[in-house]
Amino acid sequence: GCASSPASSGADALPSWNDGPARQAIVNFVNQVTREGPGYVPPVERIAVFDNDGTLWSEQPLYFQFVFMLDQVKAAAPQHPEWRSHPAFQAMASGDHAALAGNEKAMLELVLAANAGMTAEDYDSRIRAWLAQARHPKTGRLYTDMVYQPQLELLAYLRAHGFKTYIVSGGTVDFMRTWSERVYGIPPEQVVGSFIPLRYELKDGKPALVRQPGMDVNDGPTKPVGIARQIGRRPILAFGNSDGDLQMLEYTAAGAGPRLALLLHHDDADREFAYDRQSHVGKLDKAWDEALAKRWTVVSMKSDWKQVWPATK
Amino acid sequence: GCASSPASSGADALPSWNDGPARQAIVNFVNQVTREGPGYVPPVERIAVFDNDGTLWSEQPLYFQFVFMLDQVKAAAPQHPEWRSHPAFQAMASGDHAALAGNEKAMLELVLAANAGMTAEDYDSRIRAWLAQARHPKTGRLYTDMVYQPQLELLAYLRAHGFKTYIVSGGTVDFMRTWSERVYGIPPEQVVGSFIPLRYELKDGKPALVRQPGMDVNDGPTKPVGIARQIGRRPILAFGNSDGDLQMLEYTAAGAGPRLALLLHHDDADREFAYDRQSHVGKLDKAWDEALAKRWTVVSMKSDWKQVWPATK
Ligand SMILES: [Ca+2]
Ligand SMILES: [Ca+2]
Repeated sequence: GCASSPASSGADALPSWNDGPARQAIVNFVNQVTREGPGYVPPVERIAVFDNDGTLWSEQPLYFQFVFMLDQVKAAAPQHPEWRSHPAFQAMASGDHAALAGNEKAMLELVLAANAGMTAEDYDSRIRAWLAQARHPKTGRLYTDMVYQPQLELLAYLRAHGFKTYIVSGGTVDFMRTWSERVYGIPPEQVVGSFIPLRYELKDGKPALVRQPGMDVNDGPTKPVGIARQIGRRPILAFGNSDGDLQMLEYTAAGAGPRLALLLHHDDADREFAYDRQSHVGKLDKAWDEALAKRWTVVSMKSDWKQVWPATK
Repeated sequence: GCASSPASSGADALPSWNDGPARQAIVNFVNQVTREGPGYVPPVERIAVFDNDGTLWSEQPLYFQFVFMLDQVKAAAPQHPEWRSHPAFQAMASGDHAALAGNEKAMLELVLAANAGMTAEDYDSRIRAWLAQARHPKTGRLYTDMVYQPQLELLAYLRAHGFKTYIVSGGTVDFMRTWSERVYGIPPEQVVGSFIPLRYELKDGKPALVRQPGMDVNDGPTKPVGIARQIGRRPILAFGNSDGDLQMLEYTAAGAGPRLALLLHHDDADREFAYDRQSHVGKLDKAWDEALAKRWTVVSMKSDWKQVWPATK
């Protein structure tokens, strides 16, 4: 009967979520929008958007895509002696994470310069090769094994209830798309992110998309713009973890009808990391104040999650 | 048995297509990619992209979105006396279609100026209001009744065989998304098009997306870029009608495995319009040469289609 269906308690579908206010808020919301009644939302409008770094997988001590980019710069450095005097390059060479995070923009310029002119296909191969062997300095896991088990369950739970699940991230789409379908069950077309401009060219008569300098950044106030551009509908559920998600959460929450805005708080130094207002990666400050003021659902990694990462083989 | 299934002949699923080489090419292709064998393509990779103007609906004597924009300019003209000396405005006022088409860029600047600062929601309402009453000068039909019946059948036929159908158009996404789901069965997130930049703002504490000057154009060589950005997979089927589709067709056809590139030729002055190499709207010249050289499938409106537009109520 109704009482034993997964939608009723979420216990079967969300085994890595403790029975607490966060899980209850999720289950209540899903019940509300999927059952006949004043809160019903037709399946085509059940759009759920998830930030990626720090929301679907870890992001400390540096965004994982940033680590990939650093490795690319290191590999290209012998061909670029002029980089040696660059402050960002020096921060990288000395392993100074705080300086690196502070020099993210400058670093990005180096990286973009290193990769302009490469075809999208070649870049894709580099990402795949890196992800297949690079390991996290603290856990020794492959980076794609540092996705959050409770979130994998939540994504599947939402899809089982007619939701379309999207990533809306500051990371670039090419980086995420190489693994989002395999790991999250999110196909390339449901990944919204920053975009490196491409140019269409014929190389020996063969079509190629060639990377150009620059980046169209999808973060903070441009997340709702990215949503409008690529999805074309306002989400009814948004899940983030930092100030870069503030506008996406605001935009989602401000729509008519039932809405769910969720914020993950990294408060679990034992199992993962603990950081918020002072962090130089994934800073959670204004969005936290807003979440408290507007009664968004704050998810505590420590109390709401039974398990952080999936078991590895 | 096999011989009587719709996939075998397409006659049941594509009643408005004459039995000829074009329909046969479509049916053969769908059979090939959906049946076990060397040409099999898994459903997630069955991406079909369709140009819109002149491929899914008519585009003469002027792109329909352009007519909408002209009507917007006319409505705003009393507030802009400075427009009176503008050549594009004069072409419009005198009803000179050739001059207007030649001044499309200048006209666009006027239009974008007229609408910068408007919220996406307000603009959406204007599009809907216009589409509900504006009628085509030659046929007297609502513009959304000038979609092609054979293409509606083709879209449905492809979806019934596991394809995901996309629009990839030079028109702007906001314009198409107001009706693409209702008319074509193509949801907003499957509409790729030109994009008017938006800025996220709080207006009286309420999130709004505000239109900015400029346009990120999705046409010709930027169609494959738009596909890479929003879909993230190379299509296996592309359908266009003009030189603006050349690169999209090339890009689609150059992928590995079975591919189908289709080009609609407007050769039916009696039932619709006849135009190609000399037209200032939907010019078909280089793409036609390429289609002949590469044996893409050229669809003749006159010989391949039993019916052009749907019956109206
Ligand atoms: Ca984040
Ligand atoms: Ca066209």
